Amino acid sequence: MAKKEETPEQVVGVVGSGSFATAIVKMLTENCKVVHWCVRNEFVKGAIELRHHNPNYLTAVRFDIKSLKLTTDINELVSACDIVVLATPSIYLADTLDKMTCDYSDKIFVSAIKGIVPKVNDVVAHYLRDEFKIGFRNQAVIAGPCHAEEVAMERLSYLTIATVEDHKKMLHNKFASHFIKVNCSCDILGNEYSAILKNIYAIGAGIASGLGYGDNFTAVFVSNAIREMEVFLEGIHEMPRDVNESAYLGDLLVTAYSLFSRNRSLGNLIGKGYTVKSAIQSMNMIAEGYYAADSIYKTAKEKKMKTPIIDTIYAILYEGKNAEKQFRKLTTKLN
Amino acid sequence: MAKKEETPEQVVGVVGSGSFATAIVKMLTENCKVVHWCVRNEFVKGAIELRHHNPNYLTAVRFDIKSLKLTTDINELVSACDIVVLATPSIYLADTLDKMTCDYSDKIFVSAIKGIVPKVNDVVAHYLRDEFKIGFRNQAVIAGPCHAEEVAMERLSYLTIATVEDHKKMLHNKFASHFIKVNCSCDILGNEYSAILKNIYAIGAGIASGLGYGDNFTAVFVSNAIREMEVFLEGIHEMPRDVNESAYLGDLLVTAYSLFSRNRSLGNLIGKGYTVKSAIQSMNMIAEGYYAADSIYKTAKEKKMKTPIIDTIYAILYEGKNAEKQFRKLTTKLN
Repeated sequence: MAKKEETPEQVVGVVGSGSFATAIVKMLTENCKVVHWCVRNEFVKGAIELRHHNPNYLTAVRFDIKSLKLTTDINELVSACDIVVLATPSIYLADTLDKMTCDYSDKIFVSAIKGIVPKVNDVVAHYLRDEFKIGFRNQAVIAGPCHAEEVAMERLSYLTIATVEDHKKMLHNKFASHFIKVNCSCDILGNEYSAILKNIYAIGAGIASGLGYGDNFTAVFVSNAIREMEVFLEGIHEMPRDVNESAYLGDLLVTAYSLFSRNRSLGNLIGKGYTVKSAIQSMNMIAEGYYAADSIYKTAKEKKMKTPIIDTIYAILYEGKNAEKQFRKLTTKLN
Repeated sequence: MAKKEETPEQVVGVVGSGSFATAIVKMLTENCKVVHWCVRNEFVKGAIELRHHNPNYLTAVRFDIKSLKLTTDINELVSACDIVVLATPSIYLADTLDKMTCDYSDKIFVSAIKGIVPKVNDVVAHYLRDEFKIGFRNQAVIAGPCHAEEVAMERLSYLTIATVEDHKKMLHNKFASHFIKVNCSCDILGNEYSAILKNIYAIGAGIASGLGYGDNFTAVFVSNAIREMEVFLEGIHEMPRDVNESAYLGDLLVTAYSLFSRNRSLGNLIGKGYTVKSAIQSMNMIAEGYYAADSIYKTAKEKKMKTPIIDTIYAILYEGKNAEKQFRKLTTKLN
């Protein structure tokens, strides 16, 4: 098994055609002669073939078309690949994988998705295991901090790949390049949950900003958020981990402090007084944190965790509570 | 002793007339009928008396002049007060305290200074203890995250006051108000060193930005910096502390992410190619982190700590090393 994984010819494919999927294809083309890419529809496929870039996202990234093998058929991609990187929005994942009828038992599935699968109200790692019998042994998670836009510009970024020992070196070698450094981790669940939690906290940072709280408060908010994340991750999957590593704290920082984060933007609109519904409608983008907050809140309650920030954001997003009042209450619980 | 400290009439004075000193006077006037204030010279004293605001810093903050007792004489202030808050730039502290000839043996000295005292190349807590025989028993440290500008606007901020058990409640009550929440800590040295270290790391964040590194890298840099800070603080003063509390991580965040931080600005100029000397000259402000880097680097080496970020910044600031090359080396040591 170990021998097979060190073979350099393992074939990689990416599923999804959003900005992070596009960034991942770019990373992989640095190391792989051919990258398989399953995009949403024939229009996107045709446009990439014609113009050599994704027509909708990271349009400045030009691909050598000979290094891409484009398809719109998930079965064609999975059959051709040893490693399948899943990079769709979480709400489209089930639709995509439900079409998978080919044999995938010996494939490695790498999730670059940072959200909850609505169909099962659970994280991707559990969804793959429970619905598709893809064990953790054949899974990996890619964590940031990694704005796709900066990958497009080849600005140095660090990825963390969480997987079992056997796959680490091989996956490291697929992704590492002159602009990508790769850390390896064995905390599959912790990395997946932290990538989801950080979107919820980014909504919170946005709400605070929209309400008129300043940089001093944001710093306190984020320093409480990373401690709450630690409590949550310990409650989900106890193991020795340092939440100040890049995949946890770094990813939280890049999301909570970025004015371009869609989750932060959603929060900002709500803080400024938009209703949740109108804020979501006005964004025309998917803020993963909104969907995640429901599931994460319920998990936290079920496991009796003390998560005042998640509780506050849930109350605002799902219980119609007033953001200003909820945050005023929250300020007494932070330190 | 405990009884005396709970007496509400303890008189407070502030030494310094910069922006943070002004913010502290504002905080104290929320709770104290009279705040003594020792300012730099007769011009500043006269201007505040005439115009009811500091002529140079936070000019929008208006004081009720009846609540201020202004002086330019440190002995007058210290003699009149039970609590003396030191808020000068660190490089002026020795000049100020050298004039102190009155009896100060029963006073509590609270340092709001975030830098090294050049005269002794050491932190304020050690300087007060060694040069003035003011024991830790009569000391406190105020830590952020706390931009003075946001205090001026009464935006909610959290201070941490590190002191011995006996003084906690009394100092809490002097500073807490509708826009200031106060955490208490017993980590006097850790809070002082972290406030100094964060300025050095902010220079680093600025250099990275000036060199063209992006948000992804900054997040990795900061997540490494907080881990390095933990190593340093453990090396200086081992005790159970969570560096993700606001006084440590929060203060680092507000400084490293603020475009208004003078330390970050200094780094940015250096990253953009200015020489260190010309960057300092062009700023017309004191970047505490520059002076601190020398002392902190030497302490780290003396104690054989592994501090790659501090080493990098020291090499750029004091050894004339090329920022671009030093950062390229540093990127291989981060994760």
